[in-house]
Amino acid sequence: MTPAHFTPVPLNRSYRLLNHGPVVLVSAAHGGVTNVMAAAWSTALDFDPPKVTVVIDKTTLTRSLVEASGAFALNIPCRAMAAQILGVGTDSAKMVPDKLARHGVSTFQVEHRGVPLARGCVGWLQCRVISEPRNQQTYDLFIGEVVAAWADSRVFSDGRWHFENAPDDLRTLHYVAGGQFYVTGESLQVGE
Amino acid sequence: MTPAHFTPVPLNRSYRLLNHGPVVLVSAAHGGVTNVMAAAWSTALDFDPPKVTVVIDKTTLTRSLVEASGAFALNIPCRAMAAQILGVGTDSAKMVPDKLARHGVSTFQVEHRGVPLARGCVGWLQCRVISEPRNQQTYDLFIGEVVAAWADSRVFSDGRWHFENAPDDLRTLHYVAGGQFYVTGESLQVGE
Repeated sequence: MTPAHFTPVPLNRSYRLLNHGPVVLVSAAHGGVTNVMAAAWSTALDFDPPKVTVVIDKTTLTRSLVEASGAFALNIPCRAMAAQILGVGTDSAKMVPDKLARHGVSTFQVEHRGVPLARGCVGWLQCRVISEPRNQQTYDLFIGEVVAAWADSRVFSDGRWHFENAPDDLRTLHYVAGGQFYVTGESLQVGE
Repeated sequence: MTPAHFTPVPLNRSYRLLNHGPVVLVSAAHGGVTNVMAAAWSTALDFDPPKVTVVIDKTTLTRSLVEASGAFALNIPCRAMAAQILGVGTDSAKMVPDKLARHGVSTFQVEHRGVPLARGCVGWLQCRVISEPRNQQTYDLFIGEVVAAWADSRVFSDGRWHFENAPDDLRTLHYVAGGQFYVTGESLQVGE
């Protein structure tokens, strides 16, 4: 079952989920194995068709699932999930096979063939890998085309984030290092 | 003259300037021409040696300066500069030759051969282009190796941001769209 408030985002607005530079959870699945890891190094790459980049280290289980399946999802977690983000970003499923359960991260699937998405997040971008072997090998850099997107309608509607109308626990996060995050702060409108 | 509080950041800590996903100003110079543009699509790519990525559209003057010189700088602006960011991100120097003056953006140079840096910012990453013609042509995606980094010591010291100890005008920004930014908010420490 999809979460409450889970709402489609038009593809040509999906870059706005990622544009402010939040930390993301990368999810992927192959052969019955699902994993989720944290990534700070992810950004939009194009508007329409929307594309994204994300750095996925060769040592991670997620990397092998992405390469085998040709797909991943970027899940945008919220403040309430800070400890979970750090947990799935620190532990490797290669060393801690039950890391998702241990850190309370569960997934759901929208379509039969879709990548599992992380519960509790406030934005989701389902992506197919655009194969660029040199980037992947040399830089651990993956390019994805966004093929579907959703958001929690309490904080994202009409193509914009609206954190000011919801509990602070639903704000997105920006990762620095050593367990330190910054919460997405106040909105500032210039011009118009 | 370099700005007050302009302080070197060790290269192996320089990724932390960018890790939380702030909007940046991209500066570049060639043949006596200097330009500065805004970019939301920039991220760290590696720790050591530090690398970054940034998307620079083919239509921009900055793009031609980066390609001709093989260098650029990522300047991390602060809240006080929101109108300037929008200005140099909206106007093209190809159409508005005096756009820097018009938006009150001035630059300074640290070394004789260095890329000019934007005044008023709180972090600076000087980069040399790692030539990847396919990425540049196909995706407008540039990879740079960080060769020097500095920060405003009022908000970045000992390898970390410390926005809580300084005026809110020195906080970094995250861009969404249509002139809307989010200010980098409160710090959240998990674990340790």
